[in-house]
Amino acid sequence: MSALPSSGVLDGGVHRLQLRVYFEDTDTAAIVYHAKYLHFLERGRTEFLRVAGIDHAAAVREGLGAYAVTQMDCRWLRPARLDDVLLVETRLISVRAAACRIDQAIIRDGTPIFTANLTAAFLDPAGRPRRQPRDWLALYHSLIPQDA
Amino acid sequence: MSALPSSGVLDGGVHRLQLRVYFEDTDTAAIVYHAKYLHFLERGRTEFLRVAGIDHAAAVREGLGAYAVTQMDCRWLRPARLDDVLLVETRLISVRAAACRIDQAIIRDGTPIFTANLTAAFLDPAGRPRRQPRDWLALYHSLIPQDA
Amino acid sequence: MSALPSSGVLDGGVHRLQLRVYFEDTDTAAIVYHAKYLHFLERGRTEFLRVAGIDHAAAVREGLGAYAVTQMDCRWLRPARLDDVLLVETRLISVRAAACRIDQAIIRDGTPIFTANLTAAFLDPAGRPRRQPRDWLALYHSLIPQDA
Amino acid sequence: MSALPSSGVLDGGVHRLQLRVYFEDTDTAAIVYHAKYLHFLERGRTEFLRVAGIDHAAAVREGLGAYAVTQMDCRWLRPARLDDVLLVETRLISVRAAACRIDQAIIRDGTPIFTANLTAAFLDPAGRPRRQPRDWLALYHSLIPQDA
Repeated sequence: MSALPSSGVLDGGVHRLQLRVYFEDTDTAAIVYHAKYLHFLERGRTEFLRVAGIDHAAAVREGLGAYAVTQMDCRWLRPARLDDVLLVETRLISVRAAACRIDQAIIRDGTPIFTANLTAAFLDPAGRPRRQPRDWLALYHSLIPQDA
Repeated sequence: MSALPSSGVLDGGVHRLQLRVYFEDTDTAAIVYHAKYLHFLERGRTEFLRVAGIDHAAAVREGLGAYAVTQMDCRWLRPARLDDVLLVETRLISVRAAACRIDQAIIRDGTPIFTANLTAAFLDPAGRPRRQPRDWLALYHSLIPQDA
Repeated sequence: MSALPSSGVLDGGVHRLQLRVYFEDTDTAAIVYHAKYLHFLERGRTEFLRVAGIDHAAAVREGLGAYAVTQMDCRWLRPARLDDVLLVETRLISVRAAACRIDQAIIRDGTPIFTANLTAAFLDPAGRPRRQPRDWLALYHSLIPQDA
Repeated sequence: MSALPSSGVLDGGVHRLQLRVYFEDTDTAAIVYHAKYLHFLERGRTEFLRVAGIDHAAAVREGLGAYAVTQMDCRWLRPARLDDVLLVETRLISVRAAACRIDQAIIRDGTPIFTANLTAAFLDPAGRPRRQPRDWLALYHSLIPQDA
């Protein structure tokens, strides 16, 4: 049996996940297609939640609610290429009742090649803002240095 | 023979392209996957260039250079769903030697559901900023109301 | 306003839809990523249903059922590239209670570059085969030369 | 630092790679979008080559040649869903001068949910069949039980 897919590591409020660039991620300019970085960020946030002990998929499945990105400021700094190993860093910046502010970066060999800050809103199945579960909020505050 | 795929219409400096949401664009939350809007925007910019008479694919193929998004601020306002018809609006805001500033919106039934402003830099094959061709610059200025 | 996105044309049992290759469809080998042809085929089948008067999205939304591909044999004959205009041809080959057999081809300048034959099964929300609606079956038979 | 992304394990001629289903892989029917399985298979073949010691990315980059799928027969047996861990199994079936025959399966909890057999042709940059490097052929034969 091969190794389980990595869920990355959450350490000191920073989650780190490594991933590989495949053909599917690249485009005819021989670099990673610009929108794929947002896919990579979403993998990072998903694994952040998993490692933190939050079952987002169950929340979606049971109709409790789902996180949706409502705002993102992105900077593409350098291109990534086929076969690169990229590190996705995710950190919570602040938490409100129905949304989180998150900083993310994609790093190759120690150099950031893409950065983003974003708002993830918790929405009910009808798409309205919903208060995040109380225990999630407590957990999030424990992961923000200045809140802890 | 069916109709050619639409390249949209460029009118008064605003390019408009309509497109359809397919299964491939949606996710398990029954809405369009957030990063797909960036794909839609890129189709809009590509058709803007085509309608304006600029052959971006040839520039890439011949090693002249290629546009790359270096910065984008995005707002997701409302979700789109399977089968929606979406209108991608693209307008040039300003032009510098090696980059363009662009505003884009995705509109459904007259209501914006996603907006973005971005910088598209012209890069040589090594990824360094390159001056945009002189005739492209002249064309761009003719498409910006305050420059024209 | 720009033209509505084309839904293609259904003529003599053959549906034809044209589409454009964008950056998002290509990979670092400077050709269309092989799996994207399956995305293009799905757009063709979706527009075939729309033009035939079948509202697949409503069937999915209302829990009636959804088509799922259960089998596909594919041949990649020639590569497609950025900016190519591709024609997706779709024709029904045979119909059973809970499934359709379909032939599809992707054609560039009159030359097939990809062909596939496939089975699309109609499944209930639990994933079990479900009889296709009676009026859909009647319609399908009218679209198959030897059944009509 | 988090763990490196897994390249899977090659054992007795069978390569095994585990991966996670993310939002990006699903569609509005709440299952993995059918074409995404082909993406997963490509990750499996890429890691098979890496673990076997073949640098496919370098071959592409240096213009030596690239593998292209020319034929694939696929069977979708059961749907996968958000957060599933999937095992991609890859095995070489036979080798000719310019192509390999490969069997692949995607397995969840011991049950195959998707199977495919395919031909991967080695092509020069112009898209013509090219003889695979001699040392690659020798390696491949060592990985096929009846050839070894």
